[in-house]
Amino acid sequence: MRCDLLAVGTELLLGQLVDTNSAWIGEQLAANGVASLTHVAVGDNVGRITSTLRRLLDDADAVIIGGGLGPTHDDLTREAIAAVMGVELVADEAVASTIRELFAGRGRRMPDNNLRQALVPVGATVIPQRRGTAPGLICPVGGDRVVYAVPGVPHELREMFERAVLPDLMARSGETGVIASRVLRTWGETESGLNERLDAVVAELDALGDPTLAFLARGWEGLEVRITTRAPSAAAAEERLATWEAKVRADVGEVVFAVDDESMESVVLDEMRARSMTLGLAESVTGGLVGARLTAVAGASDVLRGSIVSYASDVKFELLGVTPGPVVSEPAAIEMAEGARRVLGADVGLALTGVAGPDEQDGVAVGTLCVAAVSDLGRRTVTARLPGQREQMRQFSVITALDVLRRHIIEPS
Amino acid sequence: MRCDLLAVGTELLLGQLVDTNSAWIGEQLAANGVASLTHVAVGDNVGRITSTLRRLLDDADAVIIGGGLGPTHDDLTREAIAAVMGVELVADEAVASTIRELFAGRGRRMPDNNLRQALVPVGATVIPQRRGTAPGLICPVGGDRVVYAVPGVPHELREMFERAVLPDLMARSGETGVIASRVLRTWGETESGLNERLDAVVAELDALGDPTLAFLARGWEGLEVRITTRAPSAAAAEERLATWEAKVRADVGEVVFAVDDESMESVVLDEMRARSMTLGLAESVTGGLVGARLTAVAGASDVLRGSIVSYASDVKFELLGVTPGPVVSEPAAIEMAEGARRVLGADVGLALTGVAGPDEQDGVAVGTLCVAAVSDLGRRTVTARLPGQREQMRQFSVITALDVLRRHIIEPS
Repeated sequence: MRCDLLAVGTELLLGQLVDTNSAWIGEQLAANGVASLTHVAVGDNVGRITSTLRRLLDDADAVIIGGGLGPTHDDLTREAIAAVMGVELVADEAVASTIRELFAGRGRRMPDNNLRQALVPVGATVIPQRRGTAPGLICPVGGDRVVYAVPGVPHELREMFERAVLPDLMARSGETGVIASRVLRTWGETESGLNERLDAVVAELDALGDPTLAFLARGWEGLEVRITTRAPSAAAAEERLATWEAKVRADVGEVVFAVDDESMESVVLDEMRARSMTLGLAESVTGGLVGARLTAVAGASDVLRGSIVSYASDVKFELLGVTPGPVVSEPAAIEMAEGARRVLGADVGLALTGVAGPDEQDGVAVGTLCVAAVSDLGRRTVTARLPGQREQMRQFSVITALDVLRRHIIEPS
Repeated sequence: MRCDLLAVGTELLLGQLVDTNSAWIGEQLAANGVASLTHVAVGDNVGRITSTLRRLLDDADAVIIGGGLGPTHDDLTREAIAAVMGVELVADEAVASTIRELFAGRGRRMPDNNLRQALVPVGATVIPQRRGTAPGLICPVGGDRVVYAVPGVPHELREMFERAVLPDLMARSGETGVIASRVLRTWGETESGLNERLDAVVAELDALGDPTLAFLARGWEGLEVRITTRAPSAAAAEERLATWEAKVRADVGEVVFAVDDESMESVVLDEMRARSMTLGLAESVTGGLVGARLTAVAGASDVLRGSIVSYASDVKFELLGVTPGPVVSEPAAIEMAEGARRVLGADVGLALTGVAGPDEQDGVAVGTLCVAAVSDLGRRTVTARLPGQREQMRQFSVITALDVLRRHIIEPS
């Protein structure tokens, strides 16, 4: 089964918008064993959409079109699909009344052009809209091929892909079982190091053929180990994933910080919330990034009291009570953490101090990070030498520090 | 002149990497009057790269290929171009010795496969490498068309595009003059509002035909007004841009916060540095984002003393001296700013308090933001109702607050 992609929108060609949809769909297809070999973007031009779609269908069994389904005159995906199918567009009364109801429900007048979104190529199946006003389409072409059309708005596209496109594609591919995967997120080991430590597991899996194991580098989000299986049922898939997750954890469990949709920040907040612990931060090199990342998670206020961003050295000395002297060191990080705990009235203090560059500081090299976590559980410190330019170093500092905090809580020293 | 794009790399199809290069090149081409109508991504497969390139050259005068120029066996762009040109690949001794010197200079052994990067299609011109080890290529095809190949690493691609690809493309397009543009970054006015206020300027430009004016929405980076001109010389272009920048500023000058590569944060830091002023922050809803954004700029330490992220209300009361009561209000923001100024020993205090959601707080609606800037210059406050979900609201809060600070400094009340 091969499914290629066509992104529609002049704003993509002009660089006003980066096409993140194709990467996202590509990843979902790969995870479900569907080959996707060509991704194309064209503008809002019905001739070009039509000819590109025809060309893609020469090689692919299926094409997913993202975008061009809106209400305006430059939303032309419906027209292009009808041309390729060789059929007319007709108004679908059910879709039209849904659109009218959406506007009525919001108490807004419906501009007439919205009814363009109710036009459906004869022979196509509508994917009902749940989030936006534009429905998606499943359009059979020439007996053995299919074109899917979904809105270009990322959250609408993703919802419709998961709900309707992927299941239909799987059914057409003759896949009778279930493809499922589990992602184990790791921090603190290199890709080659993980690979080496999982040598025996990889060899065993290579011999079996299923599940498969993949390593994906996510930069400052860590390294993912993804286990994917094809199984006759969801229950069988779940059992197989659980078995192999346990085997992977037996070898590298201490670097696994999260599973599937969890993030380092959500895990840290959950672990602290479960223990009714509060957190106070003292940041220097990161300038507020740790607090910003934690508070991106709704409900962070249960745990986070606040952060003292002590960018100037004398703020570290006067407000946090750090002993005057060089400030990029483990002792300084410990005093910062203790200061944050005291000043913010928190159970746990977490502090970061380091050198993001471009220049070294007090003879300490660019990329150096010192982290300390202190609480009644004890104290944990780490000094790391991080790669990258200023912003990359700062982002690596955030996940490094949150991992120190996580270990401080779950493996008290 | 039409120049289409081909991104090469299996990691793009698998969604392990989002293709930001095509958007970037597309924007540069548009700014220089070159049409770019199809962007394609394919994997590391020589047959598919070759056939896609042939197809693109059926319609386009030029194709830029990004990626597939590295040293490994799956870097196949050179082979595909040679096939399309119908020529052999030969080793270029100058390129080979540059690669050897790069490794020697770093004191590292050079794996032999690096010499693959010295292979050049007969008839092609080398674009010497400056940042990575792979050179770029300018490859004439069939007398009237051209293929450019540049590395996929974004900073290498951008440097080579600006240095060699764009000048060559402009020369081939018969463009004898200079295309130059100026970007005025604005905050505080909607796109339709800007458009309306610039009505007379737009009408005058429409009649003249040059320069052109474009509006680009950059989300929480603001709205750009881009003036682009074609002129016989750089000096003439500069004069024309200066003239029209002045006309635009006469109508909407008070919302222009930056020009070209400047950002809101770099402008605020520069304005404060020029006045020898220091800054202390008090953040709540943004959790540290304002400090994080400012400290992303190297040299922020000249200005920024630090930030008190008072996420819990009693940290606002106890550490910052805010009067106990509801904390999302202008009076609370003023007390927070005064507290930050005092606790951090800063000339200017800037404070943000608001509701990012998902739920309202003390009867205050999601999206509400109160900002205060205080100093010896006086006091400036703003209450805004910002759009978007949690993260979007927080990012809009950052630029809103920094703009309040900017105005507080340059237009003291």
